[in-house]
Amino acid sequence: MSTSTAPIAASSESKKPRLLVQKYGGTSVGTIERIQAVAQRVAAARQAGFHVVVVASAMSGETNRLLALGQKLSARPDPREMDALVATGEQVSVALLAIALNEIGVPARSFLGHQVRLRTDSSFMKARIRGIDAERLIETAREGIVPVVAGFQGIDDQGNTTTLGRGGSDTTAVAIAAALGQAVPCEIYTDVDGVYTADPNVCPTARKVKRISYEEMLELASLGAKVLQIRSVELAMKYAVPVHVRSSFSDAEGTWVVNEDESLESVVVAGVTSDKNEAKVTIRRVEDKPGRAAGLFEALAEARISVDMIIQNPSPDGSTDMTFTVSKGELAGAREIAGKVFQSHELFVREDVVKVSIVGLGMRSHAGVAAKMFRILADEGINIEAITTSEIKVSCLVAAKYHELAVRALHDGFGLGE
Amino acid sequence: MSTSTAPIAASSESKKPRLLVQKYGGTSVGTIERIQAVAQRVAAARQAGFHVVVVASAMSGETNRLLALGQKLSARPDPREMDALVATGEQVSVALLAIALNEIGVPARSFLGHQVRLRTDSSFMKARIRGIDAERLIETAREGIVPVVAGFQGIDDQGNTTTLGRGGSDTTAVAIAAALGQAVPCEIYTDVDGVYTADPNVCPTARKVKRISYEEMLELASLGAKVLQIRSVELAMKYAVPVHVRSSFSDAEGTWVVNEDESLESVVVAGVTSDKNEAKVTIRRVEDKPGRAAGLFEALAEARISVDMIIQNPSPDGSTDMTFTVSKGELAGAREIAGKVFQSHELFVREDVVKVSIVGLGMRSHAGVAAKMFRILADEGINIEAITTSEIKVSCLVAAKYHELAVRALHDGFGLGE
Repeated sequence: MSTSTAPIAASSESKKPRLLVQKYGGTSVGTIERIQAVAQRVAAARQAGFHVVVVASAMSGETNRLLALGQKLSARPDPREMDALVATGEQVSVALLAIALNEIGVPARSFLGHQVRLRTDSSFMKARIRGIDAERLIETAREGIVPVVAGFQGIDDQGNTTTLGRGGSDTTAVAIAAALGQAVPCEIYTDVDGVYTADPNVCPTARKVKRISYEEMLELASLGAKVLQIRSVELAMKYAVPVHVRSSFSDAEGTWVVNEDESLESVVVAGVTSDKNEAKVTIRRVEDKPGRAAGLFEALAEARISVDMIIQNPSPDGSTDMTFTVSKGELAGAREIAGKVFQSHELFVREDVVKVSIVGLGMRSHAGVAAKMFRILADEGINIEAITTSEIKVSCLVAAKYHELAVRALHDGFGLGE
Repeated sequence: MSTSTAPIAASSESKKPRLLVQKYGGTSVGTIERIQAVAQRVAAARQAGFHVVVVASAMSGETNRLLALGQKLSARPDPREMDALVATGEQVSVALLAIALNEIGVPARSFLGHQVRLRTDSSFMKARIRGIDAERLIETAREGIVPVVAGFQGIDDQGNTTTLGRGGSDTTAVAIAAALGQAVPCEIYTDVDGVYTADPNVCPTARKVKRISYEEMLELASLGAKVLQIRSVELAMKYAVPVHVRSSFSDAEGTWVVNEDESLESVVVAGVTSDKNEAKVTIRRVEDKPGRAAGLFEALAEARISVDMIIQNPSPDGSTDMTFTVSKGELAGAREIAGKVFQSHELFVREDVVKVSIVGLGMRSHAGVAAKMFRILADEGINIEAITTSEIKVSCLVAAKYHELAVRALHDGFGLGE
């Protein structure tokens, strides 16, 4: 720790290549030209002194093309075989990317799920990662070779190919960054250049966020902002992986998803988000007796239907209206079950609704945020059909026609455009 | 061995399901409809009491599409990555075929090279099989599940994906049949319905052969009849695997490739074949001294250029004309080497030639077959430019314009159409 040796040590330390994971999504590797551009980007990171480990998705459109082939053969294709089928998409793009890298003088080698022993459970089409053998990747990177790992895929204990569900390559990338060591950053290249305070297509004054906490990102992801797969954010939070969401079409800084205490901006509300994929079911005048709600939601859970919002307002006459929301894809099933449980009751379904939400860590310490949200909506004459809250989120269901109006009013009302 | 128990034993024996390998080529699985037809055929074999193990190629056109993608990125794409790339073709077709089988109530499971531990050397793009773990396949088949194995691909000692070269799925199928047990038959489904006495497109009187020996098939395969990959025939011969070449578009019996002693038809000449892919190089008036030929052919061997026919006719004046043939793809390289070795000599190249061959085990015990061939060609006024023979084959190089005439004359002259 003498002053004379410190600079030398620091200098040699700064020259030691650091590990970096870069994940490229489907549009980033969608054509031969885009793959060549990605290779140049990897080369630049290497030039900047990083040992890069690359994770790639299938070329855009490829996964859907493969799914369609399988679905032509069967209305309910075998999940194990669908995974074997769609996993080829990533295999093609990592091989092509490795070829492109070798071509410009960057030694590279593709790896599939079984080759890095990315182990998962056996839930085909939505498998969960159990572990990764990072040693082979670290060794390869240390040899100066760029490992290009197929995202989205793994193997189970029997050696079957599994896939991680839509957006699973994000999770692969974060899991690899976590396995490579402490605080290895993970760059997620996508077709948007970061996380915004609202959807820029809906709200023209939306602003790119420089830093956001894992918790806020989790709420935004689950609320319909399709930037990152939820499980990748959960994993990043668990292992404190710094995630950098950015565009492969520009060199601009994107959004860092980091620990709360590293988040520079301490704001009450970080963003406004909306989800058009919910539908509302109301059962009228249910006898307000214990067990009635339980009976319904148990039946829904048994059918694996996820319920989002639940409202129950007892009237003085001893009856109650029960309202809940589900995703539109599960509406038919939910309606059938509710009809069976409450055979003699009126059932109302509403699909022209949108869920508008505000998310922010600051809510935990600021009172009155929900009240302010309701006031902003009321001032625009927007009626609230249902409310749900978490520690760092408030969601309101409103008529679909108010979608843009509600998002813009909340965005401006909470001063997010400034 | 008592007469009373024998029939029962025989009956129970005949009911025990026998193993059968079925290999389907690219055109056989070229569309969703063809894949459904293949599934029906597998179901029928199962119904007939067989434990079927299926091997499938990539859908026709797919391998070329993938190769083209890689070649767009690099003039010399990394062979390891090209193998990772093209191996996806088979992965898609086996998954689809397994889905199609499950759909019609035939339990099926796809397997990739690494899942059946089909081990090869590390010669990417032309790897050779070292071994297969047949137990998993046998177990799966015994459970009543049809294993659908990806042809063409394997893994090396480091777990890298390898491929076996053009037509490699034939070799996969034969290797699996050999690994499953003694005399397990291997059906090769292709777009022709068997092996013919000559190419039916060239010779209208060509006749399908019912049985042919491995040795004859080897000569036919190496002489340009593209029915089976040569290595698959070598492997079938080594392990006495009965191979049945047949069409996936009909139920007709095809051609059995079997041991010589099982071959019913004992004919002198089994077939006539031709190869338009050779070119002839002649070096004029070389001094007839020891070592001149060796110098040339060593240099060619060093450049990995395969020489087919070689003729050297010394003249009384002490000089000699040296002639050899190579495949047209290697002509440029061969010409350059010959030019270097014999700098002051005239070099003639001829590309408008065709090699016409007769093949038959009977030649070993019948004298005068070659003489009869030369006579038939001479009677048609066809000049022979070069001759090469093996124990069971005679080949003549003739001008390309005589291609059809020579094949038809030999086919009729040896009575093959009868």
